[in-house]
Amino acid sequence: MKKFDDIDLKYMKLALGLAANGRGRVSPNPMVGCVIVKNKKIIGSGYHGIFGGPHAEINALKSCKNAAGATMYVNLEPCCHYNKKTSPCVPEIIKSGIKNIVIAMKDPNREVNGRGIKQLKFKGVRCKVGVLKKEAEQLNEVYVKYITKKMPFVILKMAYSLDGKTSSVTGDSKWISSEESRRRVHDLRSEVDAVLVGINTVIRDNPLLTSHGRGKNPARIILDADLKIPLSSNVLNKEAKTVIATSKDSPINKIGKLEKKGIKVLKIPSSKGKINLKKLLASLANMGVSSLLAEGGPTVAESFINNEFVDKIMFFICPKIINGFSKMGDAIAVKNVIINKSGSDVIFEGYPDV
Amino acid sequence: MKKFDDIDLKYMKLALGLAANGRGRVSPNPMVGCVIVKNKKIIGSGYHGIFGGPHAEINALKSCKNAAGATMYVNLEPCCHYNKKTSPCVPEIIKSGIKNIVIAMKDPNREVNGRGIKQLKFKGVRCKVGVLKKEAEQLNEVYVKYITKKMPFVILKMAYSLDGKTSSVTGDSKWISSEESRRRVHDLRSEVDAVLVGINTVIRDNPLLTSHGRGKNPARIILDADLKIPLSSNVLNKEAKTVIATSKDSPINKIGKLEKKGIKVLKIPSSKGKINLKKLLASLANMGVSSLLAEGGPTVAESFINNEFVDKIMFFICPKIINGFSKMGDAIAVKNVIINKSGSDVIFEGYPDV
Repeated sequence: MKKFDDIDLKYMKLALGLAANGRGRVSPNPMVGCVIVKNKKIIGSGYHGIFGGPHAEINALKSCKNAAGATMYVNLEPCCHYNKKTSPCVPEIIKSGIKNIVIAMKDPNREVNGRGIKQLKFKGVRCKVGVLKKEAEQLNEVYVKYITKKMPFVILKMAYSLDGKTSSVTGDSKWISSEESRRRVHDLRSEVDAVLVGINTVIRDNPLLTSHGRGKNPARIILDADLKIPLSSNVLNKEAKTVIATSKDSPINKIGKLEKKGIKVLKIPSSKGKINLKKLLASLANMGVSSLLAEGGPTVAESFINNEFVDKIMFFICPKIINGFSKMGDAIAVKNVIINKSGSDVIFEGYPDV
Repeated sequence: MKKFDDIDLKYMKLALGLAANGRGRVSPNPMVGCVIVKNKKIIGSGYHGIFGGPHAEINALKSCKNAAGATMYVNLEPCCHYNKKTSPCVPEIIKSGIKNIVIAMKDPNREVNGRGIKQLKFKGVRCKVGVLKKEAEQLNEVYVKYITKKMPFVILKMAYSLDGKTSSVTGDSKWISSEESRRRVHDLRSEVDAVLVGINTVIRDNPLLTSHGRGKNPARIILDADLKIPLSSNVLNKEAKTVIATSKDSPINKIGKLEKKGIKVLKIPSSKGKINLKKLLASLANMGVSSLLAEGGPTVAESFINNEFVDKIMFFICPKIINGFSKMGDAIAVKNVIINKSGSDVIFEGYPDV
């Protein structure tokens, strides 16, 4: 296995850290950070800060006076293709006189995919590829999925009580998780392109599905095969874009009313009252949704899992026992919780606060 | 609030550590450890090692040549009562010439409950009480419950998949948890007086309910209102004592067959096929069961929780998604799991291994 020296690792870590500044802002582009080093000193750095804005390499080159002879660290292969918002980075890097370039991972985009590296090498720029590759791939896991599969990267978020319930027997789910966790979910919403829930969640909880002021709002996707959504639902407000996925037989009349409110209604093939998720995900990808946070209840979770559409899970386990109680307020808190690992498991020990 | 100096804390920690050596061996007695210090040096130490054997204080006194003028650290008030296996410690301590005694907590046993301290003080031994009281109470939580309430301390153990299932839809529960966790449960069984499951677990899984060689075996308690237990069940073997709790109407014929195998059959008032748990727990306490590990499935868990009989929980959360799959082997493992705290919650992040 190829080894990389500590200096490579150090500057690539910095580049990855810079890249992460673009989280929630550059989608569906990848997050990219760039550090330029000459005579053991950082002479320039930059990151891709906003979709449509200049790439990390360009920002970094602009930030230093003279990059000739320097080494560039960047977490993704520089681009060389033209059919996009900005001109390609490779020619600019060559022009700058950069002598060495250290790259974490090739760009899986078929338009690049090694061609950027080839062009750099051809012009005499020495390339080292693969430094912190795994970390780079994880940072851009959404981009990698989206650009290679033309499907959104799906994060399934669930909140469970310690005894594995998502709500009380009457459907009361406010709140299982702690305030901190709910804020974490709001942050997460600001980082994804879209959130998705089933119609039952809309009817029962009437959520906003926004980031509650913690960043940009994602588009809201509602699974609603029978178009049961009440016109007064919070998700139909103007705070964020909303898309309703419904069956092809849904009444034109109601569709019209929704469209008048500015809601996009997607007619998706459905069977037995269930939207064909694969077709929906493909449509969403076409609309530019590269990341989707599925936040529904157990039914939505089950369909996503059954169909192997879940790329990542984010499960909140909350120290409450809901048991067969009807109200969330009756749930038993567990106090003095101690959490230990046991092989791959986690043990929660504590005392029911009765 | 009363403060204690670092020296008190240091030696009391040692005493608590020694006390813990008695775990699983002294029940229903408390775990007690004792350190004797003279001129800043430990001159003796001991612990209560086995039920019926000498107490910690006596062992510690025996281990040093001359305790006169020394300070004794002990995590529980020394005993002063006679109606038990060993003679009381207080007279021995007084006889030894111990000058100071530092005690973590009063003995809640009504036969002692401050009387030991009173006798020591009366004889001129200076007493300091309350050093690491909370830790001492937790160490002996089983004893405190049992001696004050005459009911067993109940630990509810459950193993859940990440999506809150205890088995597949067909009832397959082998195995949700990791090997390490199953060993941890075997250890736990060796530390309690009895384990309890419902008859459905016996019929479905045919478990041994022993410590699998990791220590002494607990008594096995089976909730079986209708006396459905197959006579070939593993829990009826000779490895450990077994008690079957059944309703008063169970057939005398089957009871006879079980009793011939050496099984104890307890007739407990029942209604609608459910054993009255309170009566059962009281009977078990009478039989000397001070700690009970309830290991059943969700039905057993729910009845214990509903009736507020659970003193402590121990829930294993396992990085698998069982979903609606029928076989445990179909469960989706979650890989590269990262565990973070979020307020009082725990977040599991990871990637379904599909």
